[in-house]
Amino acid sequence: MITDIVILAAGQGTRMRSAKPKVLHPIAGKPMVQHVLDQVQTIPNTRIHLVVGHGAEQVQSALQGYDINYVYQHEQLGTGHAVAQALPFLTENSRVLILYGDVPLTPAALMATLLEPVSEQSMSLLTVTLNNPQGYGRIVRQNGNIAAIVEQKDASTEQLAITEVNTGIMAVSQVLLAKWLPQLSSNNAQGEYYLTDIIAMAAAEGVVIQGFQPEYEQQVQGVNNRVQQAELERWYQLQQAHELMLAGVTLADPNRVDIRGQVQIGSDCNIDINVIFEGTVVLGDRVSVGPNCVLKNCTIASGTSIEANSLIDQSIIAENCQIGPFARLRPQTELLAGAKIGNFVETKKSTIGVGAKVNHLTYIGDADIGAKANIGAGTITCNYDGVNKFKTVIGAGAFIGSNSSLVAPVTIGEGAVIGAGSTISKNVDANALAVGRARQISKADWKK
Amino acid sequence: MITDIVILAAGQGTRMRSAKPKVLHPIAGKPMVQHVLDQVQTIPNTRIHLVVGHGAEQVQSALQGYDINYVYQHEQLGTGHAVAQALPFLTENSRVLILYGDVPLTPAALMATLLEPVSEQSMSLLTVTLNNPQGYGRIVRQNGNIAAIVEQKDASTEQLAITEVNTGIMAVSQVLLAKWLPQLSSNNAQGEYYLTDIIAMAAAEGVVIQGFQPEYEQQVQGVNNRVQQAELERWYQLQQAHELMLAGVTLADPNRVDIRGQVQIGSDCNIDINVIFEGTVVLGDRVSVGPNCVLKNCTIASGTSIEANSLIDQSIIAENCQIGPFARLRPQTELLAGAKIGNFVETKKSTIGVGAKVNHLTYIGDADIGAKANIGAGTITCNYDGVNKFKTVIGAGAFIGSNSSLVAPVTIGEGAVIGAGSTISKNVDANALAVGRARQISKADWKK
Amino acid sequence: MITDIVILAAGQGTRMRSAKPKVLHPIAGKPMVQHVLDQVQTIPNTRIHLVVGHGAEQVQSALQGYDINYVYQHEQLGTGHAVAQALPFLTENSRVLILYGDVPLTPAALMATLLEPVSEQSMSLLTVTLNNPQGYGRIVRQNGNIAAIVEQKDASTEQLAITEVNTGIMAVSQVLLAKWLPQLSSNNAQGEYYLTDIIAMAAAEGVVIQGFQPEYEQQVQGVNNRVQQAELERWYQLQQAHELMLAGVTLADPNRVDIRGQVQIGSDCNIDINVIFEGTVVLGDRVSVGPNCVLKNCTIASGTSIEANSLIDQSIIAENCQIGPFARLRPQTELLAGAKIGNFVETKKSTIGVGAKVNHLTYIGDADIGAKANIGAGTITCNYDGVNKFKTVIGAGAFIGSNSSLVAPVTIGEGAVIGAGSTISKNVDANALAVGRARQISKADWKK
Repeated sequence: MITDIVILAAGQGTRMRSAKPKVLHPIAGKPMVQHVLDQVQTIPNTRIHLVVGHGAEQVQSALQGYDINYVYQHEQLGTGHAVAQALPFLTENSRVLILYGDVPLTPAALMATLLEPVSEQSMSLLTVTLNNPQGYGRIVRQNGNIAAIVEQKDASTEQLAITEVNTGIMAVSQVLLAKWLPQLSSNNAQGEYYLTDIIAMAAAEGVVIQGFQPEYEQQVQGVNNRVQQAELERWYQLQQAHELMLAGVTLADPNRVDIRGQVQIGSDCNIDINVIFEGTVVLGDRVSVGPNCVLKNCTIASGTSIEANSLIDQSIIAENCQIGPFARLRPQTELLAGAKIGNFVETKKSTIGVGAKVNHLTYIGDADIGAKANIGAGTITCNYDGVNKFKTVIGAGAFIGSNSSLVAPVTIGEGAVIGAGSTISKNVDANALAVGRARQISKADWKK
Repeated sequence: MITDIVILAAGQGTRMRSAKPKVLHPIAGKPMVQHVLDQVQTIPNTRIHLVVGHGAEQVQSALQGYDINYVYQHEQLGTGHAVAQALPFLTENSRVLILYGDVPLTPAALMATLLEPVSEQSMSLLTVTLNNPQGYGRIVRQNGNIAAIVEQKDASTEQLAITEVNTGIMAVSQVLLAKWLPQLSSNNAQGEYYLTDIIAMAAAEGVVIQGFQPEYEQQVQGVNNRVQQAELERWYQLQQAHELMLAGVTLADPNRVDIRGQVQIGSDCNIDINVIFEGTVVLGDRVSVGPNCVLKNCTIASGTSIEANSLIDQSIIAENCQIGPFARLRPQTELLAGAKIGNFVETKKSTIGVGAKVNHLTYIGDADIGAKANIGAGTITCNYDGVNKFKTVIGAGAFIGSNSSLVAPVTIGEGAVIGAGSTISKNVDANALAVGRARQISKADWKK
Repeated sequence: MITDIVILAAGQGTRMRSAKPKVLHPIAGKPMVQHVLDQVQTIPNTRIHLVVGHGAEQVQSALQGYDINYVYQHEQLGTGHAVAQALPFLTENSRVLILYGDVPLTPAALMATLLEPVSEQSMSLLTVTLNNPQGYGRIVRQNGNIAAIVEQKDASTEQLAITEVNTGIMAVSQVLLAKWLPQLSSNNAQGEYYLTDIIAMAAAEGVVIQGFQPEYEQQVQGVNNRVQQAELERWYQLQQAHELMLAGVTLADPNRVDIRGQVQIGSDCNIDINVIFEGTVVLGDRVSVGPNCVLKNCTIASGTSIEANSLIDQSIIAENCQIGPFARLRPQTELLAGAKIGNFVETKKSTIGVGAKVNHLTYIGDADIGAKANIGAGTITCNYDGVNKFKTVIGAGAFIGSNSSLVAPVTIGEGAVIGAGSTISKNVDANALAVGRARQISKADWKK
């Protein structure tokens, strides 16, 4: 059977005080609406209808790559009106799941649960129990199923004491939706068409309304301002931290780790405070990550140690490497086994060979460094002439003296030695010594 | 009408275990007593009387620039005694507001509210409702107004259940104060004169005592040790974070941002974890600040991105600049539009032109860098000869090869090119190539 | 009297999902079992019996230096079985204290309290009151003493309401233990011998069972997975932060400081956010430590200021030094009074003299720098020739021009001046000027 997913994403989100449509604001680095879409992907045979309005172009541009039927809601006349715009695009007899682009953390399993009872005799509503239900529509149950939603202003004292409230997320047959949506009225204080009003129609017609609840209230929490965004961000991060810990990762402080993407972490890894993961990060076993590191789209093999304040982006690190502190590995850096990158070192588009060392105050760009080469402190690969970038090749076992400038394109042969302070612009043969520096002269008793 | 503000600031603060008077310990980087003074500034027609004792000189020296009448309390004989020292300096018939230098976060609006009812028939007392009122003087109310303060040791079981307690902050007519203060007695366990005892006198004389409450209990919380100081610090920081978020700033973690001064932030800015703002900081729109940055007394225009672990102090940054990671901009750095400062770069007293790049491992001090100039990795402006500092001028479009030393005073003309590894101590003409390095020589088959 | 301490440490800790035995997982950088051992050290006349099983060799190897009788429990048949393995090694008539290697934070004072009542007529049991006692053995008291432990499954409704539960930590006479342990039965669902069953025997024989409680429940909390490990880690860190604050240290955020070892901090020190202390760290008075610093095994004298993002390891810093930001002091760095280490500077096995300055982008290794010497930006001590390390000596008042390379072994005399960009490989006399750089040449109108 086809499942039509209708996601409401047309609102302006005034309280976000932003030029960006609300549903594009991120949780864990990913737009809220994309969280919803990614959960929906796991449900089979779906057609996704995204109801857009404010900032429709920005939303569409941000969601390229998703297979989405965009539905335009030109006036914002309420949730019922929004779903009604999608009605013509729904499959006959399908099950319809209604979600919200600003309720980012509803899990796919819960969506699937909601869809199960859907028929022409039965529908589902997602509810949540709140400590403080003030302002929300209360759920009145009869014999276990939902009998009515009573809005705050219409509720009796007894009903006001109910703490189970409506989330607006529901699953219902297309047939029923097609019958009920045209019957919605905007004859209310806001002058809006409320999707929630179909619950009364269902009850009146004897359609069973099954109520389901999330495991955590944050899974149905909407975001209307940046305070709420931060609340969900923190809850989501803590959930991810818990999962990592249960899987066997030691976190120095679960409140001080940020995962903005996907991480896969092996056994007995140790993550110190304030580490940020971005994109797709894979760690092997026994990897230790020091405080204040940022790891983005990288793979770190087993036994590697990353010390404090290091930044790694789009790099591949082999086993038993040592990186940092204060190292910055930029995209297309590859470290082979046992390589070492020390403090105040920047690398870019370079391969550092097995056991090679680049220990201090160095810039390595567009370079291939051979196994066990030693790059002295202050070495700079001069890879750029203002127009083009050129390559530096350093052979295995070469020793580059400190404060050298290697003017690319240049090749330093295997086992070659470069004297400290040299500027090297011509190739150096294997096992040769090359020096490019002036003779030292002195003047005695010189006064400043 | 004149308002006399009496601020008690004479206590030693033994439990702070500090050589510094308690009221000078900071919240958000500002001495506690200065928080009180800055709130008071917004009340019109005030005279401020600061009652000092322990560390009086340090207090006075820290508060230069404020218009304050210092009143000396040579012996610490209680709050009543402290206010009595100020009595001779009060204006006849004034309204008197009594505050505490170690209760830093009372807002000005609440002070104004307290002052409103003050007359010879009426006074105000600030009270607070605590979950655990243990140890505090309970507020007994009659017909809505305050009838008495009952101390813990004198309270009946029924009174002990009262959770509204006295804060000591009050507003009262000078006329009444002048009548009551001399009647205070030190005939109690501590042998001290308690200001609180005037409440009983007011009640006895039929003066109406209006009670007011703060929105948050932290607004009346005093600081007696560094645990309490940290509690107020964190509450204050979180309040500031909430205000920023409601104004439209995305904070990655409201528990990990510190604002020690004044910030003004435009729309759609993004502040990552552990950012510290100090002094006066102004951010335009769409500014992103990476993790662990410290921004102090600086202006950052719209569209600029500051990456992880960067420090900016007393600098002016134009729009669409890129800074960091690991950049350190020291005072009097100015970046023009689109300039780029990369990793392990230090700047000081320098202007970086439109679109100019200083990407890696560089020290730029006392320099003017022209538009679109490119400063290679490892470049050092040698601005200091051990005695004086000299200026380096680099023309627009100049290209400084890596690892160059520019010995100031020196001017590099527009479009000039400096070869990598050069030491440049003489001016270079526009569009010229300058090189200052030795010829490369090699010895084959050299063994280490 | 001899006290036998039996510490159970044989469990696998499956839920840690680790190749490391559970008791070796750290709290505050120290293996859990070592926390227990270090508390036990303060009790006089003890013999320590560590019951090991899973990973016994790793445990023994980690605990070298402790005087421990290792007892092997080859099968894991319950706590009673574990203690029974130690029975043959206990001293006749001793007091026996039973502890757990995965309950790391029980304080020595509480252990001593438990031991006090131990005789052939009396024993002690450590209990704790939990908000949610679900699953734990409830403590039934009679006349103040403990009458029984009732397991969850056997408890009446009334007993289920008891919130005082068994911790398993107890102190009992060796005589009684020798009598009771052989009577334990494994005739239960798990087929295990439960130490707890001796409480019923004690009660049956009229031995008084005194119950004691910890000040904090975390002091008896066990660790079964990394979530629980993180919980104890955070509690322990916060306790340490509180102690520092009460002793007079200002912490910017008590939730953002980590102490993994021993710190001793003088008066009026200021510790900014995210500082980590490791090993033994001693701070004098008025030391300020900026955000994100890591201080490990170092001594920092009074008045020294350490700025943001600095790392100090095994170094000795004299008074009134300035370090950082972005400084990295590696082992065997010594700073004399008033020395200054600036940004992007690495030091190692070096002494920096009184008032000497190493301000920017420099590597100082194996060097002695005299008083008031000034080391220019970009200076590198070339201390390594690929095989050996050599020493650099810089005399008092010397001025090393920027971007210089000092090729060790080399001595720069007192007051000597090195020209910017020089490579210096021969000694320089006192007060001499040495330059080692090429002449600057220019080509006009050169095009890139």
